[in-house]
Amino acid sequence: MASNKEDVKLLGMVESPFVSRVDIALKLKGVEYKYEVENLQNKSEFLLKYNPVYKKVPVLVHNGKPISESLVILEYIDETWKQNPILPSDPYKRALARFWSKFIDDKIINAARKALYTHDEKEREKGVEEIEEALHLFENELKGKFFGGDEIGIVDITAVLIAYWLPIIQEAFGAKLFTSDKFPKLYNWSQDFNNHPIVKETLPPRETLMAYYKGHYERHVASNK
Amino acid sequence: MASNKEDVKLLGMVESPFVSRVDIALKLKGVEYKYEVENLQNKSEFLLKYNPVYKKVPVLVHNGKPISESLVILEYIDETWKQNPILPSDPYKRALARFWSKFIDDKIINAARKALYTHDEKEREKGVEEIEEALHLFENELKGKFFGGDEIGIVDITAVLIAYWLPIIQEAFGAKLFTSDKFPKLYNWSQDFNNHPIVKETLPPRETLMAYYKGHYERHVASNK
Repeated sequence: MASNKEDVKLLGMVESPFVSRVDIALKLKGVEYKYEVENLQNKSEFLLKYNPVYKKVPVLVHNGKPISESLVILEYIDETWKQNPILPSDPYKRALARFWSKFIDDKIINAARKALYTHDEKEREKGVEEIEEALHLFENELKGKFFGGDEIGIVDITAVLIAYWLPIIQEAFGAKLFTSDKFPKLYNWSQDFNNHPIVKETLPPRETLMAYYKGHYERHVASNK
Repeated sequence: MASNKEDVKLLGMVESPFVSRVDIALKLKGVEYKYEVENLQNKSEFLLKYNPVYKKVPVLVHNGKPISESLVILEYIDETWKQNPILPSDPYKRALARFWSKFIDDKIINAARKALYTHDEKEREKGVEEIEEALHLFENELKGKFFGGDEIGIVDITAVLIAYWLPIIQEAFGAKLFTSDKFPKLYNWSQDFNNHPIVKETLPPRETLMAYYKGHYERHVASNK
């Protein structure tokens, strides 16, 4: 479906799980695109022009038209390139897929931030409880090999944050939030997801992320002194 | 398209702008439904069963199947009852509509909370700046009579919070965030929206909301003593 006339650019940075979502979706669809690396310390003219509201990555630019916000981009990709759908066709199942994608962004991310980036011990402990509760709810939603069933869908892609990023970030921070003994089903899913051939070739090297998030952790510790 | 076999219930409370969104969308579609009033101080078995994750309204129950989260419900309504579409058909315009709906929930609501519910004066002032900046960005997006063009669309419906609720809440709190002199275009839109015949018959009485949010304000003041 992609023709030579298509011009698809992804403004991103390898350390971002939100960019990774778009990366994975485009690769699953077989869409050719150019990845333009952004440096958030020194934002490009393109980024400021294409995402004036948030000035954040990812931004997908399709034939000159920019789209921001990873979940909005995933829906756009699915509507624009119909092959290998990432949303179900049934409206009720679509609603559930949207609900759980949003759950990851609203609930899991906020709880993870609180559990990792809070200096106050009591608040941090509350964050740990919240993320464990949220991960249990999420794990209970897993009915097949993937959240999308036999194939990877939008919920799996959104949850790359849990499958690949969270284990690295928690190690960098010396925390244990998502472990195979607490969440065996979700852990198995994360292995299947990370080892899916297309996902695997798309994910950035573990060492790159570990160095980046160790830097986060050091700054986090320093900010408490 | 609605037949006698359809069983549509909305679990809601009149004071909630999130419930109002669903209310308006169903009315615009001409879908018959039963409104079941929830008391959040004493949540019904239904609510706990149908929205175990957030235990919040609105919940739409269609033929026994529950859906939560107002933006997810709006998309479901548009996909299930095709008459009077509330999302554009073009994928790029759909992406923009989703982006601005999300902007209201992520940016405007958080800024409004900060500007109204923060005790610390400096933080509150930052909230006021943030909501003014966000409302300016939002106003600049208004190209026609409605955000949806000639007809009301998903962005207008999502923004019922700005059109109808915000003027009442700010009055209850003695604040002036959204005024006709600061945001003339957005103010005119809010009048057109609130006076749209279907919206008008759906909105709860001003006095009901005023009494409710004055109660909020009194508790907010008391919590600082």
